[in-house]
Amino acid sequence: MTQPTSRWWGGSALRGDSARLEAFSDGVLAIAVTLLILDVRVEPAEGESLAHALHSSLPQIGAYAASFLQIGIIWANHHALFRLVEQVDQILLLENLLLLASVSFLPLPTGLVAEHTTGADGRTAALLYGATLTVSAVAFNLIWRRVTRHGLMVSGVSPEFVRDVDVRYLAGLVGYTVATVLALVAPALTIIVASLLALMFVLGPSPRQAIAQPG
Amino acid sequence: MTQPTSRWWGGSALRGDSARLEAFSDGVLAIAVTLLILDVRVEPAEGESLAHALHSSLPQIGAYAASFLQIGIIWANHHALFRLVEQVDQILLLENLLLLASVSFLPLPTGLVAEHTTGADGRTAALLYGATLTVSAVAFNLIWRRVTRHGLMVSGVSPEFVRDVDVRYLAGLVGYTVATVLALVAPALTIIVASLLALMFVLGPSPRQAIAQPG
Amino acid sequence: MTQPTSRWWGGSALRGDSARLEAFSDGVLAIAVTLLILDVRVEPAEGESLAHALHSSLPQIGAYAASFLQIGIIWANHHALFRLVEQVDQILLLENLLLLASVSFLPLPTGLVAEHTTGADGRTAALLYGATLTVSAVAFNLIWRRVTRHGLMVSGVSPEFVRDVDVRYLAGLVGYTVATVLALVAPALTIIVASLLALMFVLGPSPRQAIAQPG
Amino acid sequence: MTQPTSRWWGGSALRGDSARLEAFSDGVLAIAVTLLILDVRVEPAEGESLAHALHSSLPQIGAYAASFLQIGIIWANHHALFRLVEQVDQILLLENLLLLASVSFLPLPTGLVAEHTTGADGRTAALLYGATLTVSAVAFNLIWRRVTRHGLMVSGVSPEFVRDVDVRYLAGLVGYTVATVLALVAPALTIIVASLLALMFVLGPSPRQAIAQPG
Repeated sequence: MTQPTSRWWGGSALRGDSARLEAFSDGVLAIAVTLLILDVRVEPAEGESLAHALHSSLPQIGAYAASFLQIGIIWANHHALFRLVEQVDQILLLENLLLLASVSFLPLPTGLVAEHTTGADGRTAALLYGATLTVSAVAFNLIWRRVTRHGLMVSGVSPEFVRDVDVRYLAGLVGYTVATVLALVAPALTIIVASLLALMFVLGPSPRQAIAQPG
Repeated sequence: MTQPTSRWWGGSALRGDSARLEAFSDGVLAIAVTLLILDVRVEPAEGESLAHALHSSLPQIGAYAASFLQIGIIWANHHALFRLVEQVDQILLLENLLLLASVSFLPLPTGLVAEHTTGADGRTAALLYGATLTVSAVAFNLIWRRVTRHGLMVSGVSPEFVRDVDVRYLAGLVGYTVATVLALVAPALTIIVASLLALMFVLGPSPRQAIAQPG
Repeated sequence: MTQPTSRWWGGSALRGDSARLEAFSDGVLAIAVTLLILDVRVEPAEGESLAHALHSSLPQIGAYAASFLQIGIIWANHHALFRLVEQVDQILLLENLLLLASVSFLPLPTGLVAEHTTGADGRTAALLYGATLTVSAVAFNLIWRRVTRHGLMVSGVSPEFVRDVDVRYLAGLVGYTVATVLALVAPALTIIVASLLALMFVLGPSPRQAIAQPG
Repeated sequence: MTQPTSRWWGGSALRGDSARLEAFSDGVLAIAVTLLILDVRVEPAEGESLAHALHSSLPQIGAYAASFLQIGIIWANHHALFRLVEQVDQILLLENLLLLASVSFLPLPTGLVAEHTTGADGRTAALLYGATLTVSAVAFNLIWRRVTRHGLMVSGVSPEFVRDVDVRYLAGLVGYTVATVLALVAPALTIIVASLLALMFVLGPSPRQAIAQPG
């Protein structure tokens, strides 16, 4: 491992930095995912039955489920990545804040895609939804590059593994960009493609073994 | 213990996976339980006394208490289950997300059962409330099956204990399903039966000793 | 130490139980304290200056500060108490849920005492505010009794210390009950006395040394 | 290290105190940062396009980003500081509550600076925003003084390092005070200068090595 260039307060970045950064990130992700439900409102109009009002809320509930999945997968991804982080420096800290900002911003476009499903407003909402997830993908790429290219990674990770994850993250970025652009064809496509991408990240093949012998 | 089939990022799933999954789940459960109060609104109408308005809010406060109990017990249950988890794989991760989704969805039906207590709307609300808890019970059964049938459990757990918990979880699923269907008889029954089920899970007999000799 | 009667899932309650119970409680307390600000709304009426609207919001901001203090002290108290807990059983779990329920309920009466400061409604609001804190004090007494009287405490705690804390907690319960009843004299008294009680708990004399030799 | 004067419950303050104080603080900071988005509302008026409504929300989104940055940096700062804390006493606890109160209060002025950007109301909002951050800076100075002057710090920290951080924290306090006063010149200046200050704290030079030989 190359010598870390960390300039974190007091110099020597410790493993503990990563632990508390993970705890803070877990908190933000857990809260963002739980706040999503606050935007689902079921209020029957005068004379409307609750069953009918619930039926009208299906787009909101669908958007809730899609964003819940996205944030859940982002959490899992964040967790897998930071298992490989030995040290944290200030740039990594800011890049992680960018990731957290994009995730905690997600309730806003989630509400918008639920309310605006067609026409120009539907496209605007889906573009913003896709762009927010694309910023998350950019942040993951920045974090991964920082960790692997500036000696912040635990030792013993094989170069093949790093290349596998390089490809994986770039593919994610391309995928979310495509999903965003698809909003121009049909707003629903953005949400469907983004959800499939998220599921693929969990259920698809893992990168090759990260660490030859876990220490 | 059979060989784990975990394909979690980088292969070898570690105990640490379970620790961070528990931390994230604790966060979501703690937030969901605390957000419940946001749906209790006490706003006296013009000329109405606050005491009278509070009295009118009793159904909301009762629904708040019932859901607080449910999520509290789900947390305790989650905690007890994951003490026995050695490793986490992607399927388990998704099943856990399903559990968290059902819990963080609960504030919605909680608000609905408080507002709609009689007639067709009362039935609809109680059905949704019961169905949400039933999904939680399904998720617990899926998680337990995954953990015990795919070698993700700590070693040393007796087969008798596993069978005890199998029965317990199936009984919970049947119980919550019955509570849901009872909404068709009377909406309040769903909430009462579900609350009794939750209390039984805490105060009833424990399964037999899990681990002969804790390591 | 007497033999624990814990019947927690799988029998042998472990120190880890307390750790995760603390983590969940920390989560609920942190969220409850942070949600308080959501009830402070500053919306200038037509033609009103923001400075004037802020001035009108001072009761809300005062109530926010008072409840922030209460929950902060409850957290500190909870933390000090659970440092002495070796094991958790189901009764303790339910008693802890009662404490968390009272704390997460606090935003509701906090909003009410800010809105209703005089007359019968002011009394009702202050009574509910005081009663909620009194329930917290009851829960602390129940938890302390369970921990000390049912062998759930770490070993090595002196009987003098236990008696000191017995007195301390009973005094707290009496104090909050008096603060509640003072609502009938003047609503503001409840909040002032309750805040002084909380500060006394932090700044007043500590109980005598808990553990002769920390192990 | 001088003898600690901690009077924390049961006397001997332990390292664990700091750990749980950090966990609680992480929770409050994570929630405060995530709640910010709740104040960003994008609701097109009758006949207005969503794109236009989003454009009108840019001040809100900018205020969101600025406060997200502030809280993120406060978290990082808190984390760096508490790595050096060996023990916690009651005064430190209250000072930490003051810090958390100022942070969890921040969503209120954040919403106000987004809504009121010009004239007397713009000045009022920016003054409150700046004052809230100045209170955070005061709290950091109090905490740092308590830790370093009352023997609560880990051993082995060099006096040069303590002086470096003394200067750094005083500079921060002066900086935020200046940013607050600049509200009288132009409201936007407060937010711009405060954001630059926050970035400087992360990206600027670190204080000299804290601990000669980490133990």
